[in-house]
Amino acid sequence: MALIVQKYGGSSVSDAEAMKRVAKRICDTRHAGHNVVVVVSAMGDTTDDLLDLAGQLTEEAPQREMDMLLSAGERISMSLLAMAINQMGVPAVSYTGAQAGVLTDSHFGKAQITGMVPERVARSIREGQVAIVAGFQGVSSDDDVTTLGRGGSDTTAVALAAALHADVCEIYTDVDGLYTADPRIVPTARRVRRLRQEETLELAAHGAKILHLRAVEFARRYNVPLHVRSSFSDKDGTWIANSDAHPELVGLVPDAALKTLEEDQVEAPVISGIAHDRSQDKITIVGIADAPGMAARLFQIVAAAGANIDMIVQNIPTSGTGRANISFTLPGADAQRTIAAIEAAKDELDYQDLRYSPGVGILSLVGAGMRTNPGVSAKLFGSLSEAGINIDMITTSEIRISVVTKLEDLDRAVRAVHSAFGLDATESEAVVYGGTGR
Amino acid sequence: MALIVQKYGGSSVSDAEAMKRVAKRICDTRHAGHNVVVVVSAMGDTTDDLLDLAGQLTEEAPQREMDMLLSAGERISMSLLAMAINQMGVPAVSYTGAQAGVLTDSHFGKAQITGMVPERVARSIREGQVAIVAGFQGVSSDDDVTTLGRGGSDTTAVALAAALHADVCEIYTDVDGLYTADPRIVPTARRVRRLRQEETLELAAHGAKILHLRAVEFARRYNVPLHVRSSFSDKDGTWIANSDAHPELVGLVPDAALKTLEEDQVEAPVISGIAHDRSQDKITIVGIADAPGMAARLFQIVAAAGANIDMIVQNIPTSGTGRANISFTLPGADAQRTIAAIEAAKDELDYQDLRYSPGVGILSLVGAGMRTNPGVSAKLFGSLSEAGINIDMITTSEIRISVVTKLEDLDRAVRAVHSAFGLDATESEAVVYGGTGR
Repeated sequence: MALIVQKYGGSSVSDAEAMKRVAKRICDTRHAGHNVVVVVSAMGDTTDDLLDLAGQLTEEAPQREMDMLLSAGERISMSLLAMAINQMGVPAVSYTGAQAGVLTDSHFGKAQITGMVPERVARSIREGQVAIVAGFQGVSSDDDVTTLGRGGSDTTAVALAAALHADVCEIYTDVDGLYTADPRIVPTARRVRRLRQEETLELAAHGAKILHLRAVEFARRYNVPLHVRSSFSDKDGTWIANSDAHPELVGLVPDAALKTLEEDQVEAPVISGIAHDRSQDKITIVGIADAPGMAARLFQIVAAAGANIDMIVQNIPTSGTGRANISFTLPGADAQRTIAAIEAAKDELDYQDLRYSPGVGILSLVGAGMRTNPGVSAKLFGSLSEAGINIDMITTSEIRISVVTKLEDLDRAVRAVHSAFGLDATESEAVVYGGTGR
Repeated sequence: MALIVQKYGGSSVSDAEAMKRVAKRICDTRHAGHNVVVVVSAMGDTTDDLLDLAGQLTEEAPQREMDMLLSAGERISMSLLAMAINQMGVPAVSYTGAQAGVLTDSHFGKAQITGMVPERVARSIREGQVAIVAGFQGVSSDDDVTTLGRGGSDTTAVALAAALHADVCEIYTDVDGLYTADPRIVPTARRVRRLRQEETLELAAHGAKILHLRAVEFARRYNVPLHVRSSFSDKDGTWIANSDAHPELVGLVPDAALKTLEEDQVEAPVISGIAHDRSQDKITIVGIADAPGMAARLFQIVAAAGANIDMIVQNIPTSGTGRANISFTLPGADAQRTIAAIEAAKDELDYQDLRYSPGVGILSLVGAGMRTNPGVSAKLFGSLSEAGINIDMITTSEIRISVVTKLEDLDRAVRAVHSAFGLDATESEAVVYGGTGR
């Protein structure tokens, strides 16, 4: 008997029929002899409908009230799901974030989990009940309702799995796992059977949308095995776990995935996949004084404006001028605020010009042992060059290489790199992409 | 500066426009220098929509989950209302039942308030904020969400007003007060300017639908002045307060209503109004043994079946038989369960027959000093007799006479009695009934 945490997103519980299907799956897992804790998001369009109502009443809602409003969505889905499961003869009880002991700080709209005290959930497990927990929400030390921001339900699920020492956290979505690239761009993309946590982190951080970065970070920190799979099929999805994950995992992970794991350890480099990101803009500060601490000062100002910077490139100062250029990418939504903050500090920063490129493309190649294998970057740049695609910025990490391209070149770039690294599915491996969106 | 608790029902916040109108009224009250605490119900059809969803998933939902589900409705309305008020420049904060300290027992679906600890609401008042509190919901000692059942939001409002020592509790609805009879039955019914708490209690207990019995009981026990008025007009509605109510009330109650109060004290009897009730059935136990304790045993069995009995009449035993008949009325929804319980105890109760009359009408005449004035009952029975209406059962209290009629005679009975007691509006008093429902 294993303890399994299952997370269902809004598209899996969009209406009564979908909810019954989810309830059936939960009951099947229970009947197979496992203990089940479920984390559920708000039904389909609920959140959009609530935001629309708020938009009719106010231009800028107090964030505390917005959290109160949005948290109603999971209350509805979780209690309905509990009813559906009870109707099928399996006892189920629903818990709000507060009742499930999801303790957070007070940053409404993007609260961080500060502690997990799922006593009532643990009691339900002992009593043979399926516990249904509201995703996305928690409670602050002031007893206020908070929401965890984007990817919040995934984060709730992984945090619960960690606190309860679950054997696996299953993330149900509308596609059947993680692919070597977005199948909408690369029709020959293959489903990945197994990924290490570090690689998944890089993929999530650089544009893969199925799993949210925060959830993967939690999974890595607490070594929670994840299984990303489709709520519309019984097929295995993608397993995310390191080889030293819980020994109990062996019984749950199918042999084939374990085999992949063993192979990983002898072959290098292993490309896990290609992530892409269209949400970033680029800012270049031209002719900034090449004085000590000037770059640090610039990024203090950017951080104070609340922007999360992704890539940074600083070129060497042009000989004799004592001035350098610094480029960085940041989420498009943060750009205007950041530009204003930098321009307000123009005298202090002593730069000559600010250039703004809205909408750049970023391609990230993720895999183990990249930096130690010079052939990887050569093949990457070679394939892009052959496809006639210009590279604007490059950054690398131990297991990732990211390049900035023009937005309109991004899809072609992803396809070219996918082919060059032999990731395309052979005829026998070809899978049909059955998702409705990513 | 007074402290005013305002309660708005679902029809007052049915959409964004209605919500803005309510927000405006709250801001106006605040700008007039008063502190305001607001209790709000779920928006218009929210509750029905949620029940409909539940009905698609389950035949009989666990009541705990049903309470969890329905409580989402007030979360939505209260946070939206807080946003609308903030948008108008007045600080407002919303609180769930738990956050507002509405402590209840664990009877899901019909929880009783066991304590009020509205510390956060009181703090909001001190800080100049409008506190918006979810009606209808509370929290049990097990930290579970409970709902208060029918009339729950009125009860929340009155309980909060009592705990906060508010000067008045305003109940906003879609009609402009309490009438001498239901204007849909008696077009000439008059709005009552002022009622004593006891009379209001009798009216609410016997079918007047605007104010729920539990809320009136709370108001009487804690001496909270109520003002029932329309959210669509600024006109005064009906004041419900005894003459010894808070002295501060004097500044709030319009002189005209106070004058009515003084007049009440010299004139007797004063008829407050006529309530009617179509929701009751009648059960007659024929030929029950006229032994000590037999009636008590019958009503123990009825109580154990969960039925709330309204009227009881026991006739004298037919000479020589040693057997009597007992009739009582009870809510139609409780009838089948109650009949089954009585029939299961047929041997013990030793009765000859059970007769069931589904759907009877009950007319209740309420006013001060009735029993001491024999003219009242004579006039009541006379007017019904003239109208050719048969009376089946009669009960009386200090300030009420109730009669059971055939369901189809009830409307005519109400009109006949209304006229006989001179309650019809004169031309100059005539009001247009502007409500959409009662």
